Amino acid sequence: MNLSSLLPTLALLLATARLASSTPTSATTYQAPPAKTPFTLRIDPTFWWVGMKNPKLQLLVHGPGIGTGQAMLAAYPGVTLESVQKVKNPNYLVVNLNIGPEAQPGQLRLAFNGRQKWAYTYELRARNTDPDRTQGLTQADFIYMLMPDRFSNGDPKNDVVKGTRVNHVARDSMYARHGGDLKGIQNHFAYFKQLGATAIWPTPLVENDMPKASYHGYAVTDCYKIDPRYGTNQEYVEFVRAAHSQGLKVVQDIVLNHWGSYHHLFLDQPAADWFHAFPTFTRSNYNAYTLNDPHGSTLDRKLYNDGWFDTTMPDVNQSNPLVATYLIQNFLWWVELTGLDGYRIDTYPYSNPQFLMAWGQAIAREYPKLTLFGEAFEATEAQQAFFAQNILPPVNGFKSNLPGVLDFQIAFAIGDALKDDSGDLNKLYRALQADWLYLDATRNVPFLDNHDLNRFYSVIGENFDKYKIGLAWLLTLRGTPQLYYGTEVLMKNFANPDGKVREDFPGGWAGDPTNYFVARPGPAGAAFDYVSKLANYRKTHPVLSGGKLMQFIPQDGVYTYFRYQEGGECVMIIANNTKAEKQVDGTRFAERTKGFSSGVEVVSGAAIADLKMLRVPACTAWVVELRR
Amino acid sequence: MNLSSLLPTLALLLATARLASSTPTSATTYQAPPAKTPFTLRIDPTFWWVGMKNPKLQLLVHGPGIGTGQAMLAAYPGVTLESVQKVKNPNYLVVNLNIGPEAQPGQLRLAFNGRQKWAYTYELRARNTDPDRTQGLTQADFIYMLMPDRFSNGDPKNDVVKGTRVNHVARDSMYARHGGDLKGIQNHFAYFKQLGATAIWPTPLVENDMPKASYHGYAVTDCYKIDPRYGTNQEYVEFVRAAHSQGLKVVQDIVLNHWGSYHHLFLDQPAADWFHAFPTFTRSNYNAYTLNDPHGSTLDRKLYNDGWFDTTMPDVNQSNPLVATYLIQNFLWWVELTGLDGYRIDTYPYSNPQFLMAWGQAIAREYPKLTLFGEAFEATEAQQAFFAQNILPPVNGFKSNLPGVLDFQIAFAIGDALKDDSGDLNKLYRALQADWLYLDATRNVPFLDNHDLNRFYSVIGENFDKYKIGLAWLLTLRGTPQLYYGTEVLMKNFANPDGKVREDFPGGWAGDPTNYFVARPGPAGAAFDYVSKLANYRKTHPVLSGGKLMQFIPQDGVYTYFRYQEGGECVMIIANNTKAEKQVDGTRFAERTKGFSSGVEVVSGAAIADLKMLRVPACTAWVVELRR
Repeated sequence: MNLSSLLPTLALLLATARLASSTPTSATTYQAPPAKTPFTLRIDPTFWWVGMKNPKLQLLVHGPGIGTGQAMLAAYPGVTLESVQKVKNPNYLVVNLNIGPEAQPGQLRLAFNGRQKWAYTYELRARNTDPDRTQGLTQADFIYMLMPDRFSNGDPKNDVVKGTRVNHVARDSMYARHGGDLKGIQNHFAYFKQLGATAIWPTPLVENDMPKASYHGYAVTDCYKIDPRYGTNQEYVEFVRAAHSQGLKVVQDIVLNHWGSYHHLFLDQPAADWFHAFPTFTRSNYNAYTLNDPHGSTLDRKLYNDGWFDTTMPDVNQSNPLVATYLIQNFLWWVELTGLDGYRIDTYPYSNPQFLMAWGQAIAREYPKLTLFGEAFEATEAQQAFFAQNILPPVNGFKSNLPGVLDFQIAFAIGDALKDDSGDLNKLYRALQADWLYLDATRNVPFLDNHDLNRFYSVIGENFDKYKIGLAWLLTLRGTPQLYYGTEVLMKNFANPDGKVREDFPGGWAGDPTNYFVARPGPAGAAFDYVSKLANYRKTHPVLSGGKLMQFIPQDGVYTYFRYQEGGECVMIIANNTKAEKQVDGTRFAERTKGFSSGVEVVSGAAIADLKMLRVPACTAWVVELRR
Repeated sequence: MNLSSLLPTLALLLATARLASSTPTSATTYQAPPAKTPFTLRIDPTFWWVGMKNPKLQLLVHGPGIGTGQAMLAAYPGVTLESVQKVKNPNYLVVNLNIGPEAQPGQLRLAFNGRQKWAYTYELRARNTDPDRTQGLTQADFIYMLMPDRFSNGDPKNDVVKGTRVNHVARDSMYARHGGDLKGIQNHFAYFKQLGATAIWPTPLVENDMPKASYHGYAVTDCYKIDPRYGTNQEYVEFVRAAHSQGLKVVQDIVLNHWGSYHHLFLDQPAADWFHAFPTFTRSNYNAYTLNDPHGSTLDRKLYNDGWFDTTMPDVNQSNPLVATYLIQNFLWWVELTGLDGYRIDTYPYSNPQFLMAWGQAIAREYPKLTLFGEAFEATEAQQAFFAQNILPPVNGFKSNLPGVLDFQIAFAIGDALKDDSGDLNKLYRALQADWLYLDATRNVPFLDNHDLNRFYSVIGENFDKYKIGLAWLLTLRGTPQLYYGTEVLMKNFANPDGKVREDFPGGWAGDPTNYFVARPGPAGAAFDYVSKLANYRKTHPVLSGGKLMQFIPQDGVYTYFRYQEGGECVMIIANNTKAEKQVDGTRFAERTKGFSSGVEVVSGAAIADLKMLRVPACTAWVVELRR
């Protein structure tokens, strides 16, 4: 349909609103890669819904020379075209709509009269009213994190997709794509359930049409599109629906701070002020301490926030209101489209602090049940807490509204406690004590390892006894635990380079010599069974997730804490991190053991006859259900 | 004077106020050492002043059977006897007076009619009105900390004092007394001034009449008396006066948490609830994390607060209002008596949190200019900040009103940065960044070592280049720096046992083979000169103490910060912590170097011609006064 055919039948409203022009504040001299196929009319968000709490909708329209003209909207009850904004690049036009509560689903008819005439039918959908969509995660959940390219190849047909910048897969290369996909994950829903996981967190699934190392997903090239090597948007919608029907929740991994350098909005930039640019390529200093350093320099802070995360990842200028709105709408769009349950926000502290607050508020307003947690890869407890909802006043105008963070302090502490014979249990004790800084630390996500860290089994010297201690802690601490794919079958390696901890899951590809989905002989099986036993116990014993936590100061290499309900159930987690059996005077724990006389170790089933004198074997964690 | 001779001439007022009895809440089974000379009439505070802001004065009266009777006060304009309280022990009576604003200095006549009759003349003094007393410390000060027993023996006559529990000195024993005293310190005021120090902090001078290891001063046996091995109360008053007249301030080291087991109030306890007691000796768990651990057990917290610091140090029960008042009055008394400038509060977090707030408020009300800083020997930045005035809301009812703390994080960070070739400058950068948690971190006291820690020169492997870096940082950071005696002449050792870092200052005793007060050949002299040069420069350049601080992220083994006044002076501190010369691009510091073209290194006098390209020699810190 073109504009001339449309004109006679429509009463067109000329947008009389002001035409604002956003002025670039810095010049980009960075040489962008050449544009791919720039000139197809495109509108982001690609469609929208009626009945959103925020009636505003800002369309970013992209077409050749479209910015030289006006935008028009055919009459549509409840919808008004409030204003049109021009940006520096004449290939863009920003159209601000208001979608009132009386607007019904249907098709908006838009017309543009720039260098050429365009008509566009913009869809307004009905919102999904199923109250069970977007349930959010609770502490009762157990997240299985995986890298979709490296987990399982369910559909070999989409390994190489024509029109993308990579024309091959190469499983022997840690930088190439390997072929994993949505179908591969979906094929193993039963595996996750057997393990006891209740939620899946794949690293980003959106398009990363990068010529190199595109497999990791953190260099987005199209915010509105699942990468075709993983599947289609429709397949992703179906993936979430299927997960929900199996009792599995879905966490989407998102990046606010940067895009890939082949992002369509970077290849043909609306204006220079959509990205942070420097006279020469400038990397972030990766130093979030600059944000709340009372002695910090302006330069260091600017370099942190505005420097690029990597050569191929332009830093998005979120202080530009157009950019901020683009990002907010994008992440409302995915929730409404799919009913996903949570966002894991990559490189959270790197984003503009004011933007983060606005983004968090806008998302929570529309989806209060959505779970939000972020990556704040910080070295100290206070610095980590600074990026979550905490008890602190605003600092430099920033007060995080992020409910929880990935609990790196817990990961570091458990690794340190178990890595060698000098392991200090106080680190874990202190990491939990630091919960005083949070508004609600139960919304944090503890973990042992991930795609950036050394694999847990390697950290602890491939010691299976210590492995079980670590897993026992992970699954009984407060918060929503996260397991990294393969840790349940003792996958190992150090993250140097990081590809070493991103290896294919054995059995994820047809013909794999080992298939841990179907058979797990030896230690891998023992590990899986340990996790599975505990995670499934956890599912049926809410005290382990929703109960209060009480910890006692580690003594003599033994660390003890309890999960309990006042007057109700109580589980004791006692870990002997030494090479000798320890006799522990249980009367010290009377506050929690009062009323109980014995217990059962929930993994082994062993009876613990006497709570007053506990003989804990060397290098062992017990998870003891107390009995009256 | 006895009561019978007094009776005919006095109009005695019978105290009609209520006779309250404080009930012990726990039984002491700890076997106290036998009492010494219990039955001389004694009243604490030993005297008082008219015109205090708080008109209340609570007298603790001790005499044989005195609690079986009443207290009477002869008419005295402005003074009323408000109430009398009995405690469990009949040898005590608590007398509550009100000293109104109209009361004049003079002598209160008190009478008691318990098992025997007593009269007591209680002195009400005039307050000292010199506005220059109790000036308080500022960042412009530089504190010299010393152990009086180990610094210098100025008066051999008081080495052994008859009636004390130790009848010898033994300089070859690290646990015995060595004979140092007030006179020894006073003899070296000129030395402190030559070094550039402006304040003296001796470890506690009050009586420690303990049979063993009494030299350290932290086992108080009489809160109202200077230990006779150091001098008399009058000599201490004179000591402070003399210090002030020489431009030196005095910090008194005090202990609120515990007393020595030979304290007169422990030997003859007013009531069992004056001390924390357990069925068997119970040590503190030394774990302040229990105070603000949202997951902490009641037991661990109780053991922390109430457990004894050591076998010879009973834990004072500050939740007993009588005890709290006793402690508050005692530390008002010393300020008013001497005009001292600051209190350093030992084991600050171990005290009852509610008491700490009340104590701090009472002291600050009466002496707002008095400097207060405390020992919070904690492992993490947030935990340390918890015990100072900070930006946090109250936690478990506690919000510290302590203006500053001894900055252990700085000491740890500098030691870690310089201890070996792997030294990480980021630790110091982060320790300063953590200032965001404080209300005003300039009131902290940074230091390199003290009587409990390894001596700095040993920590850094006796590397003189690193020594100079550490001292350059200490004397140019924010806060009021503290130097531990002997560090200026390279005294060394590790604190295992702690006596090793409490050795005699060479030259402090007549006949010492080495006398660093008069001659400092070789490295000791170079060290002294470095400190002296910088500390004296600091005295005349307020930008180094009162100026703002701006730090830049350490890069390539070089850490740079500035002290500056907006539009005024600016000093650059740049430290190369590597074994190679570094060329540093100074344009990175343009925010601070703008308007300056060159500089002078203030210790060496070397000219720094080009601020844009700095060639910093290996293992060197420059303190550069910038020139326009």
